[in-house]
Amino acid sequence: MEYPKEIENFLKKKKIEVGDLIEIRKKDGKILKGILMPRIELGNKNSLIIKLENGYNLGIDWEEILEIEKIEKIWKLKKEKEVKEDKIEFRKDFKWISILSTGGTIASKIDYRSGGVYASFSAKEIVQQIPDLKEIANLKVKQIMQKMSEDMLPEDWKIIAKEVAKEINDGKEGVIVTHGTDTLHFTSAALSFMLQNLTKPVALVGSQRSSDRGSSDAVMNVSCAANFLVNSDVAEVLVIMHGSINDDYCFAIRGTKVRKMHTSRRDAFRPINDLPIAKIYWKTKKIEILNENYRKKREGKVKVDDKLEEKVALIKVYPGFEPKIFDFYIKEGYKGFVIEGTGLGHVPTFSKKSIIPKIENAINSGIPIVITSQCLYGKTHPTIYHNLRELYKRGVIFVEDMLPEVAYVKLMWVLGHTKKMEKIKELMQKNIAGEISEKLKLETFLY
Amino acid sequence: MEYPKEIENFLKKKKIEVGDLIEIRKKDGKILKGILMPRIELGNKNSLIIKLENGYNLGIDWEEILEIEKIEKIWKLKKEKEVKEDKIEFRKDFKWISILSTGGTIASKIDYRSGGVYASFSAKEIVQQIPDLKEIANLKVKQIMQKMSEDMLPEDWKIIAKEVAKEINDGKEGVIVTHGTDTLHFTSAALSFMLQNLTKPVALVGSQRSSDRGSSDAVMNVSCAANFLVNSDVAEVLVIMHGSINDDYCFAIRGTKVRKMHTSRRDAFRPINDLPIAKIYWKTKKIEILNENYRKKREGKVKVDDKLEEKVALIKVYPGFEPKIFDFYIKEGYKGFVIEGTGLGHVPTFSKKSIIPKIENAINSGIPIVITSQCLYGKTHPTIYHNLRELYKRGVIFVEDMLPEVAYVKLMWVLGHTKKMEKIKELMQKNIAGEISEKLKLETFLY
Repeated sequence: MEYPKEIENFLKKKKIEVGDLIEIRKKDGKILKGILMPRIELGNKNSLIIKLENGYNLGIDWEEILEIEKIEKIWKLKKEKEVKEDKIEFRKDFKWISILSTGGTIASKIDYRSGGVYASFSAKEIVQQIPDLKEIANLKVKQIMQKMSEDMLPEDWKIIAKEVAKEINDGKEGVIVTHGTDTLHFTSAALSFMLQNLTKPVALVGSQRSSDRGSSDAVMNVSCAANFLVNSDVAEVLVIMHGSINDDYCFAIRGTKVRKMHTSRRDAFRPINDLPIAKIYWKTKKIEILNENYRKKREGKVKVDDKLEEKVALIKVYPGFEPKIFDFYIKEGYKGFVIEGTGLGHVPTFSKKSIIPKIENAINSGIPIVITSQCLYGKTHPTIYHNLRELYKRGVIFVEDMLPEVAYVKLMWVLGHTKKMEKIKELMQKNIAGEISEKLKLETFLY
Repeated sequence: MEYPKEIENFLKKKKIEVGDLIEIRKKDGKILKGILMPRIELGNKNSLIIKLENGYNLGIDWEEILEIEKIEKIWKLKKEKEVKEDKIEFRKDFKWISILSTGGTIASKIDYRSGGVYASFSAKEIVQQIPDLKEIANLKVKQIMQKMSEDMLPEDWKIIAKEVAKEINDGKEGVIVTHGTDTLHFTSAALSFMLQNLTKPVALVGSQRSSDRGSSDAVMNVSCAANFLVNSDVAEVLVIMHGSINDDYCFAIRGTKVRKMHTSRRDAFRPINDLPIAKIYWKTKKIEILNENYRKKREGKVKVDDKLEEKVALIKVYPGFEPKIFDFYIKEGYKGFVIEGTGLGHVPTFSKKSIIPKIENAINSGIPIVITSQCLYGKTHPTIYHNLRELYKRGVIFVEDMLPEVAYVKLMWVLGHTKKMEKIKELMQKNIAGEISEKLKLETFLY
């Protein structure tokens, strides 16, 4: 996205490029300092966008500008050599954390596929965006992939798991993984199962507003995550993002009990059937533990156990659902199914579109069927109703309050380790990474 | 479910059967009156269960009972002739309402398929369970089907729509449809589109606890619904059920903006992206309108427009999703797809499992693709991100904040009326029954 000709020409003459720190003198006498950003697509064409030191973006009408001076270059353009890994030591006595970037809104300063201007991943640039980091920890930054999260695949989870383990085993106090929000909760579940003997915390952090827009939530989310990694004793895979629509605090939510529950709100990530592990205030840096039941930091090496059977399908049932879909999947070589049932885990049972024969057929072929609920909140139950017992007695696997998305990831992981039905059942019903609540927390935090 | 031999023999001697109103004298001198219920499956085998006048069930330990006397027969056994339709006039100046029963927990006093004891659907029995009704309206009751809602099919929605229209056009002030909770929100959406020129309110009412269990929520839900039908001027299809986990008030939620969000809680039905239309207090009968934007009661005849194209599939995408599923559905003759995208409506776009070629193929074959979000809360957006534009420019239909389940039902209904792509798009994006919010309400009510 380019600025209008008049503005582009002026900037060219002054040798100012997007990514430069500039000082703007306005006609009303005010002086503003920030990094020149590319024009945002939907904004006022005649506004110059700068990123202020506090991380927010500001649009300034071209007509109001008297003068512009370049101070220094902060971001590099794509045509220059890309920086993919960098570090910065603020204080000798600080602990080190790593920020691994995978892409997504939090990193998409510009559409990364458009070939337009594009900032490389330098520590200096990150700190410029999130100045809080200077007071928290020494920083390593690394771009491990560049994907919008709707394009992530199970094979990407393995790459992320290995990179995280490498950082922790290299002595970092914790790792932040920046990630697109759309499927962030799938990745957090995958890491929860893949990172065995976790010794330090891993925070998945996304942003609901792109970092090149005004009022991005990336700044506060990364700041809270860094604070929590260094200043708590929690060693879990967590999602750390806005807890409310205000820029006041984040929640640290267990990676297996979280789901994106809003398309656009900053507080889209909500704990399901669980309390957040902690509330992290942004400005005061205060950390409030809400759920004492967590894994603590420890010594030792993290192991990556990333074997997955990818031929698993997540299937939602509903009135009119096509039973033949199971035949299709089995023909395609699928090895396991997670059903999003209705209510307590029901499926069409006694109608002419009953899927019971299909379930019998799958189980008789050694294909496990796991039952979850599309209600999301609450737990499934194998015996309360007659129709549930019809399912249960055929050998389906009920998994309490496990989220459908988490059950999907877990079944892939379990099938990566065993194909024995009894063992699959045992593992699916065993609480491995907090995915099954011992006691259902009814006081969930939602909107 | 039978009581233990000793108890069964005693009852037989006294000629007391399940369904009889009895008086129990306890050893501690207390006297209790209620209807003898069948033994509940999971309860104490040696407890006698009676339904008290307030609708609650009570278990009394056999050891504590001194004497039992039969007062009168209230419910009939299955072996007697079933009553499927009945009415009762309490006061000449009362308005009439109808309760149509479709089955589900609210009607499942005992597992209806087990062949066990089974109460028929008489007005007297309903009033015995929900005594409030005597003070609200004259009552017609009718059992129109007997299905658990997970077994409901689109063809059942048509039966319900016709029966509801018949009652309204016959002069009833409103109609309560009792319904299993699992797919109640699909039926409420279907009725919202099928009942054209609605003149009186229709309340879908379910129960999260079976009516033969202690503390069933059916009593309060039906009571609140009856009160609202008679004493408000709202003429919409509504879901009326518990608004909180206490027995204090119900919410009346628009039939297209509601979803079952908990497997077991009484307040499982929550408004999504909308305010409830009203809050209905149970004991005081006070009605509080929360959302002034509703259809009012009027004169005229309700028309049933129940044409559906049932070959529609609801498809949720996720990391690793199988693109070939579209080929399967098209081969099976499917005529439309609703996709539950991630976030703002994304689908796998640039990965090796991209579904973009499948979407192109479907649209080129005249098969519409509607995009919703699995976040449930918030609205989709066709242009904010590059990947969304990739979808948009191929002709998919974004439908704002419409729920996936509602879009599924609506697409069936729209395709029942036209197969022209432009017309389908126009109808899907037009607000017909409150399914698209004019202005998104952020203050949603959740847990």
